[in-house]
Amino acid sequence: MAPRGQARENLLQAAIKLIRQHGYNGTTVDDLCAEAGVTKGAFFHHFKSKDDLAKVAADYWSAATGELFANAAYHKQEDALDRVLGYVDFRGELIEGDVSEFTCFVGTMVQEAYQDVPEIRRACQESILGHADTLTDDIREAMAKNGISGDWTPESLARHTQAVLQGAYILAKATGGTEIALESVRHLHRYIELLFEPAARRRAA
Amino acid sequence: MAPRGQARENLLQAAIKLIRQHGYNGTTVDDLCAEAGVTKGAFFHHFKSKDDLAKVAADYWSAATGELFANAAYHKQEDALDRVLGYVDFRGELIEGDVSEFTCFVGTMVQEAYQDVPEIRRACQESILGHADTLTDDIREAMAKNGISGDWTPESLARHTQAVLQGAYILAKATGGTEIALESVRHLHRYIELLFEPAARRRAA
Repeated sequence: MAPRGQARENLLQAAIKLIRQHGYNGTTVDDLCAEAGVTKGAFFHHFKSKDDLAKVAADYWSAATGELFANAAYHKQEDALDRVLGYVDFRGELIEGDVSEFTCFVGTMVQEAYQDVPEIRRACQESILGHADTLTDDIREAMAKNGISGDWTPESLARHTQAVLQGAYILAKATGGTEIALESVRHLHRYIELLFEPAARRRAA
Repeated sequence: MAPRGQARENLLQAAIKLIRQHGYNGTTVDDLCAEAGVTKGAFFHHFKSKDDLAKVAADYWSAATGELFANAAYHKQEDALDRVLGYVDFRGELIEGDVSEFTCFVGTMVQEAYQDVPEIRRACQESILGHADTLTDDIREAMAKNGISGDWTPESLARHTQAVLQGAYILAKATGGTEIALESVRHLHRYIELLFEPAARRRAA
């Protein structure tokens, strides 16, 4: 059994691990307690229900991944476009090892729970869109610097990066490997390069 | 109760409907029988298990969607690039109404079952990659006609279209609406246009 103060943290980590592996409905409260090394009493001391744990785990996931990205090296690039492309490349670097370890907890959970558990859907929406929003300022700065405008916005490109990543994970799950996901990350990188290729450079090409 | 000959078909359609709504593990054999209007005896007459039904339903889904796409108007375009872009636009046209009605059955199912049910993973892989492959020849022809070559292949771009669509569905589920998915389809359209913008036209721009 886990030390008492550790139970809540263990349950949150167990939720992330097991739901990434087996999905939301494929993970029971008993599974979560066994993985976390806590009693059912401890579970219900900390969380009202599995739905409640899942919602809190989505916020916990946002905080944990938020810290990972906030401290990543791509932010140190001086040029805004380099930071955006550096972000995409960093996402590619994270795609390695076991599929359950690099795929997205909230993207997996919302796939099943979007209709049946509104508070989980909302928590997943906040997690995905909140993360997308960390890219918006860099994209806007890169557009201004390169004189790029078009029928798309910084916000929409930021959201699109998340669509590509979520879809890349599904293809990784379908094929049981990383290569197909990395391929899509490279297509995303190439798309952003093409969007930002300034008209002047095109003419000079 | 459904007429006897109808039971198998009803169960396949029930699987597609309910799994799109509630996920694979969120759908029980009882749910499937109730939706299909068949007895549990009829279920186990036609399928060995829920896993077995799901695997057959993935093949059924491939056949049904295969027919939809084979008969779609974009194939009639004379120019190969127009056919590829027409495919992307057609995928956008299909994104309307209730989220559970336009999202992907096999993409939803593999998200949960990829690790736990290998035969479902394989059926979903075949469905997604088989569909992607219907684009490969048109992409190859468009590359040849426009003199495009790069560090990507027709096959990889075809697979990438599926990643974008699968991810767009997840964002639709997270937000409960279609707009965020349509936005990614437009980004995909724009990416393909940029890839195929011939060097000559760039210089002339």
